Amino acid sequence: MEEVWVELGERRYPIHIGENLLIRAGEILKKNGKVMVVTNPTVGELYLDELTEGLTGEGFEVSSSVVPDGERYKTLEWANRLYDSLLDHRMERGSTVVALGGGVIGDLAGFVAATYKRGLPLVQAPTTLLAQVDSSIGGKVGVDHARGKNMIGTFYQPRCVLISLEVLDTLPQRELRAGLAEVIKYGVISDEDLFGYVEENLEALLGWEPQALRFVVKRSCQIKASVVAKDERETGLRAILNFGHTLGHGLEAATDYGLYRHGEAVAAGMVWATEIAVGLKLTPEKTLTRIATLIARAGLPTRSEDVSPEEIIKFLRQDKKVLNGRVRFVLPKRVGQVVVTDTVPEELIRDVLKEYLG
Amino acid sequence: MEEVWVELGERRYPIHIGENLLIRAGEILKKNGKVMVVTNPTVGELYLDELTEGLTGEGFEVSSSVVPDGERYKTLEWANRLYDSLLDHRMERGSTVVALGGGVIGDLAGFVAATYKRGLPLVQAPTTLLAQVDSSIGGKVGVDHARGKNMIGTFYQPRCVLISLEVLDTLPQRELRAGLAEVIKYGVISDEDLFGYVEENLEALLGWEPQALRFVVKRSCQIKASVVAKDERETGLRAILNFGHTLGHGLEAATDYGLYRHGEAVAAGMVWATEIAVGLKLTPEKTLTRIATLIARAGLPTRSEDVSPEEIIKFLRQDKKVLNGRVRFVLPKRVGQVVVTDTVPEELIRDVLKEYLG
Repeated sequence: MEEVWVELGERRYPIHIGENLLIRAGEILKKNGKVMVVTNPTVGELYLDELTEGLTGEGFEVSSSVVPDGERYKTLEWANRLYDSLLDHRMERGSTVVALGGGVIGDLAGFVAATYKRGLPLVQAPTTLLAQVDSSIGGKVGVDHARGKNMIGTFYQPRCVLISLEVLDTLPQRELRAGLAEVIKYGVISDEDLFGYVEENLEALLGWEPQALRFVVKRSCQIKASVVAKDERETGLRAILNFGHTLGHGLEAATDYGLYRHGEAVAAGMVWATEIAVGLKLTPEKTLTRIATLIARAGLPTRSEDVSPEEIIKFLRQDKKVLNGRVRFVLPKRVGQVVVTDTVPEELIRDVLKEYLG
Repeated sequence: MEEVWVELGERRYPIHIGENLLIRAGEILKKNGKVMVVTNPTVGELYLDELTEGLTGEGFEVSSSVVPDGERYKTLEWANRLYDSLLDHRMERGSTVVALGGGVIGDLAGFVAATYKRGLPLVQAPTTLLAQVDSSIGGKVGVDHARGKNMIGTFYQPRCVLISLEVLDTLPQRELRAGLAEVIKYGVISDEDLFGYVEENLEALLGWEPQALRFVVKRSCQIKASVVAKDERETGLRAILNFGHTLGHGLEAATDYGLYRHGEAVAAGMVWATEIAVGLKLTPEKTLTRIATLIARAGLPTRSEDVSPEEIIKFLRQDKKVLNGRVRFVLPKRVGQVVVTDTVPEELIRDVLKEYLG
């Protein structure tokens, strides 16, 4: 087992990365007491017994709540059902919530842990590649609102993150590809070597080769941990993690979150943001070629037939990344370095979208 | 205008105390932008125009949302309506929420500010004595759940607190008395001089004498600020602020929050907690006499005809102040000093309640 620490002073916490960590959960968490595991039916079927055994074996008193699978259950209404469940099980301050699942479960269970009786200890046990390298780390928790994704949320750091790599074996390949989009993102924003590693080991990664997955998970966690430690609440640096997300969120929203996985939308968003960077002469054409080629090789989308430019632009205006009415973009200068800007002309955004949509 | 600072490192903030501060709000907040004022119809009628003028005069763009008056609107459902309103007005990161009202408005608007787009700057503008000396300071925000008060909430510090003392002039006397209960609480937990001041100046306080009110508000804010600065998240010391609240909450809950104002229930809870302290020989009988006498003189309840001991005990078990299944009590050793304990025998609690109920 390896550890990567998120250095946040008295709230610092470890990311444990290894194989078969669920059965060792009790031993890793140490301090026992009541635990509620929040999961979905798919993940619960596969891993809830193992995690429960790992916890009860060390003296934890374990209950569980199952939320239906899918982003459309990441709502205040389902948060409220989880509050009920926590009350039913008399969860008190000091009782622990474990989020066993992908990004939806991590965000929803995390929000509930953050807001139940002003905060219960939270453990993230991510089961998708995307959650392992991104959403389980850094404390962003929340639920969606009819008018926007993650509109309701807060920052709430977990006590630890438990990344058990073998759970990726049961992940559908589409989910694996979607998670790789975020790994590629880390390469572009700060680590050309990681980007190069994905270029060279793409087939191994898409073939679930354990060593390759372990390498990219660990490296991604290190980058995320380092960025979060420097800027927990996204007042500056942390914004670079949104590379590909400005237009990616627009694409997800415009297609009602039903057509694209988050990672897929981010993949397309990264290509479009890079095209904008080329248009602004921030980066040479070859950066675009390199990024778009890897994304296409990974089986991730670079274009969309499903929306119009205006549909995406409408959502940009409601995005959390709007500051003083301006849309904030993260744009690459090269593979390994990005800049944040809010001065992209709307005409350029529209032109780029026209090129890649329809 | 005087300032008391809540020392929380980079999140430190001032409590401004003075007269006619609403019209000066824009000048005090400085950095302008969008503001949404959340208030209730009663307070809005009296003070919304003045506050709005104070903000727009300095270049702020002001909107407002009105929540019906009363604890029963402090719900997730009303939080959701406020999210809608914030979205309607395109409130972005950096836009400010101002809570203009008593504890209900402060808790609800504070929770919404804490959780909308992961947090908007919040200004507390408390208009009741209770909110001025207690609930507006220290970052406790939240909403009620059908099964318990403040069950859903978080810690979220405001950017500043704006205490404009003349707004107390329009406060019903019952609310003034209820607020005094919390002032008396500060006296018991840490400041015998403050307690003595209230004993000597009770008629002036109940007669809205400005100098007396200013003195107790400022002194109470200093005590609250000092406790919060030492223990923001109630892992230790901050628990002393719950003196009178363990049984007080039980009384409020058992009477469905309709019969007693929060301060009234806390007043009775302080007497009962002191009786428990006498029963445990933690404090002499004269402490009880002194506290109960002042509470009675202030026109606050010391007994209740409306509930049975068992009804209150039932609610104790669901209270947030339960830790590892034990009920935590704050008990006076003398006026000016309390201890926190979770070893009060249930039999003693029941005996004391029998004496003061029915």
